Amino acid sequence: MMPSSSTASDRAQRATLLVSCPDQRGIVSALAQVLAGHGANILSADQHTDAASASFFQRIHFDINTLHTDRLTLEGGIAEVRERFSMELSLHYGEHTKRIAIFVSKYDHCLYDLLLRVNSAELHCRIPLIVSNHTDLSAIAEHFDIPYHHIPITPENKAEQEGKTLALLKDSQIDVVVLARYMQILTPDFLREYPDRVINVHHSFLPAFAGKKPYHQAHERGVKLIGASAHYATADLDEGPIIAQEVAHTSHRDAVEDLIRKGRDLERLVLSRAVRAHTEDRVLVAHNKTVVFD
Amino acid sequence: MMPSSSTASDRAQRATLLVSCPDQRGIVSALAQVLAGHGANILSADQHTDAASASFFQRIHFDINTLHTDRLTLEGGIAEVRERFSMELSLHYGEHTKRIAIFVSKYDHCLYDLLLRVNSAELHCRIPLIVSNHTDLSAIAEHFDIPYHHIPITPENKAEQEGKTLALLKDSQIDVVVLARYMQILTPDFLREYPDRVINVHHSFLPAFAGKKPYHQAHERGVKLIGASAHYATADLDEGPIIAQEVAHTSHRDAVEDLIRKGRDLERLVLSRAVRAHTEDRVLVAHNKTVVFD
Amino acid sequence: MMPSSSTASDRAQRATLLVSCPDQRGIVSALAQVLAGHGANILSADQHTDAASASFFQRIHFDINTLHTDRLTLEGGIAEVRERFSMELSLHYGEHTKRIAIFVSKYDHCLYDLLLRVNSAELHCRIPLIVSNHTDLSAIAEHFDIPYHHIPITPENKAEQEGKTLALLKDSQIDVVVLARYMQILTPDFLREYPDRVINVHHSFLPAFAGKKPYHQAHERGVKLIGASAHYATADLDEGPIIAQEVAHTSHRDAVEDLIRKGRDLERLVLSRAVRAHTEDRVLVAHNKTVVFD
Amino acid sequence: MMPSSSTASDRAQRATLLVSCPDQRGIVSALAQVLAGHGANILSADQHTDAASASFFQRIHFDINTLHTDRLTLEGGIAEVRERFSMELSLHYGEHTKRIAIFVSKYDHCLYDLLLRVNSAELHCRIPLIVSNHTDLSAIAEHFDIPYHHIPITPENKAEQEGKTLALLKDSQIDVVVLARYMQILTPDFLREYPDRVINVHHSFLPAFAGKKPYHQAHERGVKLIGASAHYATADLDEGPIIAQEVAHTSHRDAVEDLIRKGRDLERLVLSRAVRAHTEDRVLVAHNKTVVFD
Repeated sequence: MMPSSSTASDRAQRATLLVSCPDQRGIVSALAQVLAGHGANILSADQHTDAASASFFQRIHFDINTLHTDRLTLEGGIAEVRERFSMELSLHYGEHTKRIAIFVSKYDHCLYDLLLRVNSAELHCRIPLIVSNHTDLSAIAEHFDIPYHHIPITPENKAEQEGKTLALLKDSQIDVVVLARYMQILTPDFLREYPDRVINVHHSFLPAFAGKKPYHQAHERGVKLIGASAHYATADLDEGPIIAQEVAHTSHRDAVEDLIRKGRDLERLVLSRAVRAHTEDRVLVAHNKTVVFD
Repeated sequence: MMPSSSTASDRAQRATLLVSCPDQRGIVSALAQVLAGHGANILSADQHTDAASASFFQRIHFDINTLHTDRLTLEGGIAEVRERFSMELSLHYGEHTKRIAIFVSKYDHCLYDLLLRVNSAELHCRIPLIVSNHTDLSAIAEHFDIPYHHIPITPENKAEQEGKTLALLKDSQIDVVVLARYMQILTPDFLREYPDRVINVHHSFLPAFAGKKPYHQAHERGVKLIGASAHYATADLDEGPIIAQEVAHTSHRDAVEDLIRKGRDLERLVLSRAVRAHTEDRVLVAHNKTVVFD
Repeated sequence: MMPSSSTASDRAQRATLLVSCPDQRGIVSALAQVLAGHGANILSADQHTDAASASFFQRIHFDINTLHTDRLTLEGGIAEVRERFSMELSLHYGEHTKRIAIFVSKYDHCLYDLLLRVNSAELHCRIPLIVSNHTDLSAIAEHFDIPYHHIPITPENKAEQEGKTLALLKDSQIDVVVLARYMQILTPDFLREYPDRVINVHHSFLPAFAGKKPYHQAHERGVKLIGASAHYATADLDEGPIIAQEVAHTSHRDAVEDLIRKGRDLERLVLSRAVRAHTEDRVLVAHNKTVVFD
Repeated sequence: MMPSSSTASDRAQRATLLVSCPDQRGIVSALAQVLAGHGANILSADQHTDAASASFFQRIHFDINTLHTDRLTLEGGIAEVRERFSMELSLHYGEHTKRIAIFVSKYDHCLYDLLLRVNSAELHCRIPLIVSNHTDLSAIAEHFDIPYHHIPITPENKAEQEGKTLALLKDSQIDVVVLARYMQILTPDFLREYPDRVINVHHSFLPAFAGKKPYHQAHERGVKLIGASAHYATADLDEGPIIAQEVAHTSHRDAVEDLIRKGRDLERLVLSRAVRAHTEDRVLVAHNKTVVFD
């Protein structure tokens, strides 16, 4: 059964295991056995082997309602397998709904989109707070009844304000940060606190355009497609592991404003798709690229 | 490693297991164990549970080069698991390249497309013969050096000619029949010989149009999309399990001829996609619908 | 210059002519001449001839800032051409921003989408009122500061309430009604008041499913695509002229809830696309189908 | 009526005018008048104004069967308008079917695709010759009964061989050169002979990858989309005006070979789309970008 079809109480009975390790024989069997041995019922399992790096990736979604031991014992069993195969492994219990902080500046389209998808239960997560370097979008936060923290950034106060923001995230036990068109660059120090847990969105073009006003450049070049990408933010700004990408057709009839409009739709789409994949524990990262199980 | 990235000699070292059964605990573990126990290395495994019918589906692709028993012993072990879980199960060895008979009438676009994809090693299969109720496309068969059997059909000789065709397929040890715009309706008797192994393609519209000249009807109705579907043929003609579907945008500028042209591109696309999925043992059928592992 | 790239004051200087008539020689020239003769500068012109019905369609967008006569004189000149070629013709001045009434029931996704696109100036229109047979969405109306009229419908009061609604629309000088997932069927009497000016949205499937719970039926059938269509409502409910259609891919992994979620995204997309085309005077209707100039 | 719906004898009765000039009032009217004045019936007209460069573009497709003067007189009338508005203008008579030379190396997918589309009358053009720096694809030329010229290129003989090739093109009265995965770079001298008349295709990625083995780089980077572009070749190799672009989704499951396979499908698609637009006189070039009327 797919998690998306489930109610909150269904989800609370489930857990997801994300595993990556060097490929070798017996991994699938070892994990399946340890789960079955404790009474867990595997609901779905998806696996990938990357030939180039000889790496193994797996996502197992299972029912813990049927356990005939307790969680601690199960976790001990899993830890033993982890050791044996030198796995990187994370275990996510469905009863813990992920807590997301949304960072915004002045554009509202991605913010609205995320909040509406949370409200309609498309995205299973909590939004304990919105952070912004501007006050423009506070009315939206109010409409959705979410605390809005105005933390303005200047070159002078950046370190200090990031520290304040991090404290806020810790206080609110934030799992993931979503940059919903947040126009500040986070420092490597900040990103180190949330490795592969800061999701960003940006436009993408064929060919790529460096520098300012990319939509103007794309229009000037007469491109027939524009795109957007969502990725994990890394110190190397728009170069983090890509989670989702989408494009839209354009033509000579599209003015710069039309490209920007189509770009907004794409940004909404890929960002929500990435957040959805992340909150459902479908994304693994290795060697600066993702495995997104669908 | 994905089969598509593999050479013929790689493929010969591999096997694929397709399983469906009532869902219950321990299936994944039991299969993983029996494979690991005989030394098989699982290369990829994909699983699906259909909540509505409480059915379990799995595709396991594994390396048999590492077996420390022989195939017979492995098959015995698998059979034991099959019994235990009341599985429907098929085991496909990569060394056996599937043998496909293509049936055509007068349209050449799907035929060319399939033959070119086989030639460029996109589709891993053999085409021992082409069957047609017309002679029009024999030059294409000749160009690709494939025997072309002209078996004309009339209402009077249909049963007899189908019998002759079946004998031909048996002689050539055909695994799959692909109807590449074959304009004859196969009888239930014929289809019974190749259950879920006759692949057909047809146009699809939103809304659907019954009766003759569907592209003319679609044009008359002013549709903004046209589509095509590939499916397994059943006695209930265009109602078999759907394997692949695709659409293209249309506008008022499209004359009937343009719709037909776009339809041809769609037919090529979905048919080759379906044949590819089938030849790579990615399709399971249950309750008149498919699970297509990608 | 595209209208979408323009500011409100730019738009006020422009007008759009929508023309349909039996095809014959000299139409394009006659219209171009009458506009040039009065000093109008044609900004864009798009034309289509439907061969089957021998019908001519044209959209001319022009600058009226450069007129060296007044509008009345221009309109007289246009009327003369209309007579000569038996045209159906409408002239839309950019200074009149279209006034849209949105009808809703309980689903909020299309309502939010339209209001956000109006707010971000993607859609150039006014929303003087929202009509609903339920109270559920009144808070959204409040957030966007739009009057919300709760007009509950029962089989008994339907005629009366439609009468009340029509009076309201007249009072607010409504140009277009958008049914944003409004779950009541409008009577032919109502629709007669707004011919080709009531826009509706509904799901579309390949194959089509009649009856209740179409997403459940689509899931049961194992479709690989789902779609949505926006169209002008006619007495023949979902059979009006199609304005926009879109589809999304689905797979066996999609539970009914996933199909519904993807359907919501499609409904938003096609409805906003249709409203956009209508508000920019890009749609002509003839013989129950549309010409949508892009 | 759309040209694509027409028979060869229909097409012979038609002509297409492609116009670009600085934008000013009265252009549309002047052209419509001169055509109507000579008895031509406009079948379709499409127009675009580029605000940034204040440039006007128009494509007029018209019936010359109804002329009540001769072509010379019509051309004289058009020339007068051209002078008045400083137009760049080309007039294409439908009776002249464009003559295309296809250049190939070793990949056959684009070559087959083009030849099949010509055979099925999707593309209205003649292919008087195929040029290749290799002999590999000569059997395909033979199958389609088209002369195949093997003109091998080395750094030493390049100028000489290009001269020989140009002579061949002149002899065969070639209008357009299509580089169907031709792996040689044409010199600026060659390209100068066919300005905006050499069509090339190449892969495109988000982000872009410079250097060798782009599909390997894309795989390494974990892109979720790959694309292809068709463009007019200029001295600045892959930087000419873009005619068509398309993308396909990819995932971690796609090995490099799968990316290459998807890339081939995209190359076929965009190249045939570009050739189609060009042969139907739908493309105008200005400021290194295209206007493609559809």
